[in-house]
Amino acid sequence: MRGAILYGPRDIRFEERDAPKIAEPTDAIVRNSATCVCGSDLWPYRGINPVAQPTPMGHEYCGIVEDVGSAVTKVKSGQFVIGSFFASDNTCPNCQAGYQSGCQHAEFVGTAQAPLLRVPLADGTLVATSVVPSQDQIPSLLALSDVMGTGWFAADAANVQPGKTVAVVGDGAVGLLGVLSARLMGAERIIAMSRHESRQKLARELGATDIVTERGDEGVASIKELTDGIGADSVLECVGTQESMMQAIRSTRKGGYVSYVGVPHGVALKGEELFYAHVHLHGGPAPVRRYLPGLIELVLNGKIKPGKVFDLTLPLGQVAEGYRAMDERRAIKTLLRP
Amino acid sequence: MRGAILYGPRDIRFEERDAPKIAEPTDAIVRNSATCVCGSDLWPYRGINPVAQPTPMGHEYCGIVEDVGSAVTKVKSGQFVIGSFFASDNTCPNCQAGYQSGCQHAEFVGTAQAPLLRVPLADGTLVATSVVPSQDQIPSLLALSDVMGTGWFAADAANVQPGKTVAVVGDGAVGLLGVLSARLMGAERIIAMSRHESRQKLARELGATDIVTERGDEGVASIKELTDGIGADSVLECVGTQESMMQAIRSTRKGGYVSYVGVPHGVALKGEELFYAHVHLHGGPAPVRRYLPGLIELVLNGKIKPGKVFDLTLPLGQVAEGYRAMDERRAIKTLLRP
Repeated sequence: MRGAILYGPRDIRFEERDAPKIAEPTDAIVRNSATCVCGSDLWPYRGINPVAQPTPMGHEYCGIVEDVGSAVTKVKSGQFVIGSFFASDNTCPNCQAGYQSGCQHAEFVGTAQAPLLRVPLADGTLVATSVVPSQDQIPSLLALSDVMGTGWFAADAANVQPGKTVAVVGDGAVGLLGVLSARLMGAERIIAMSRHESRQKLARELGATDIVTERGDEGVASIKELTDGIGADSVLECVGTQESMMQAIRSTRKGGYVSYVGVPHGVALKGEELFYAHVHLHGGPAPVRRYLPGLIELVLNGKIKPGKVFDLTLPLGQVAEGYRAMDERRAIKTLLRP
Repeated sequence: MRGAILYGPRDIRFEERDAPKIAEPTDAIVRNSATCVCGSDLWPYRGINPVAQPTPMGHEYCGIVEDVGSAVTKVKSGQFVIGSFFASDNTCPNCQAGYQSGCQHAEFVGTAQAPLLRVPLADGTLVATSVVPSQDQIPSLLALSDVMGTGWFAADAANVQPGKTVAVVGDGAVGLLGVLSARLMGAERIIAMSRHESRQKLARELGATDIVTERGDEGVASIKELTDGIGADSVLECVGTQESMMQAIRSTRKGGYVSYVGVPHGVALKGEELFYAHVHLHGGPAPVRRYLPGLIELVLNGKIKPGKVFDLTLPLGQVAEGYRAMDERRAIKTLLRP
């Protein structure tokens, strides 16, 4: 089969790779209905995270189970499944506490930009839908594999409550779905921080009530202005840089909540500023598995359409253009059809 | 009157100072029944926080109201009162959210090691007891002014829950009262991290079920060993150094809670480690005012005796020996009688 392989900065190729096989009795092989490019794929693509050798890419997936190992009992061939980017046994104490992305046996699922995918710990990782979904539901179900689950975790970790004011730092797919999640959780005011007109428009469509175009200290000042000088109750940090993290912390009211779901790059939080900020902090790699059953329900019932963040769809063979479009911010998120 | 003045590293003197007067109509003057030396007073005493000029010291107090400004309506002369080290109006949005130490008009109360004290924003800051307490209740009421309120906040911010496992980093007065607070909140297992026999003994008396004597990575390993490799549900960081902060974060289970109440000195949290730690973080200067009414009740009913942390009582005139004993760790906490 042919799949995506990253060779170095901005050098991603569509090349022959060995088709995956059952390696452990707990594995499943999934034939991907769709996969996509993640904002976090751009870190190695841009050379910020160097790759030591040609590296298969992709960690978002949904599709039809093609084969299962002998120990798999909860999913079977022919079922449509969605899984998280971290395989998890869903039974260890960390999983039971709802932190499946911190499973004691967690394995990163990193070869999804391909027609076939090996998923370890299939029973714990994959959630099957009751029926095989229609083609137009695929993008929204695919989004649950990472971005929607991560946006939802961002809102949950920032303790979004009905009637409260929420700010979202970052207008990538995760930030936009953080907006959608905050709306679903009943936030009254949702301030999206975005400088891009097309993303502002989508943010409003997904539930944003206000747009702040400034960044850094000016962005903080704008949030303060909108909140009587107090700051937002909940702030979702969906980028992962020092600037975005400090923007989030400084935009939050005393006793408010900051979540962070963007993989941090070069971030260091000074103890003293954190101390006097008086905020709650929580985040990390989203425990997508925790939210999958509920979010699948919302998609299948037509309550949410997180697939809206895919504004570019390409055949998998054009994966290089998919990365390029996101790198150049011509696309929010690229869906790839194997 | 004579009070404590810090001139430089380890140079604290008991000297003539102007007696405080009502400066604002919202002020009160309190005649201190007792005051004390705080672990945080040792930062400037040791020269780690340099003092630019001779500086009056002390931020823990309780006593009898001697005079009030014309705008004060909630406390009156003759009442016994306790207040926090941060004066607060108790009406601004931050106060209403329970973060009085982050009041929009917060003022540090920093001249308490003296017979008389000016307390700004008296109506918002001071809480009067229903009756003038007995002499033996004074130490425990004094403790509410900072250490007990701070220990309680540490336990609250670390989301201590009935039946859960709690670890406390730091065996100073705040850490010890964090142990007491965790016990009151129903924690089943309370692990005190302490290398000092007398403090271990007091920790057990206050509710600790286990003692860990190791520090740093070895301390983390011991906590993991006691918790099936998972980590504690809640960890209270009551020191404020990089080592203690990392010890706290690494001792916490995925999805667990870390609080920090020791003023951080030279602390920087790396974003990536924080991200994968998956912990909740909350802390800052304790909003003691929020807890005062409830804690006063517990002391007056004899339910708690936080005054036990005072293992040295001196006349105020011997304030220098009070600092010295704490600096040399001969005393946990020094009570001073004006």
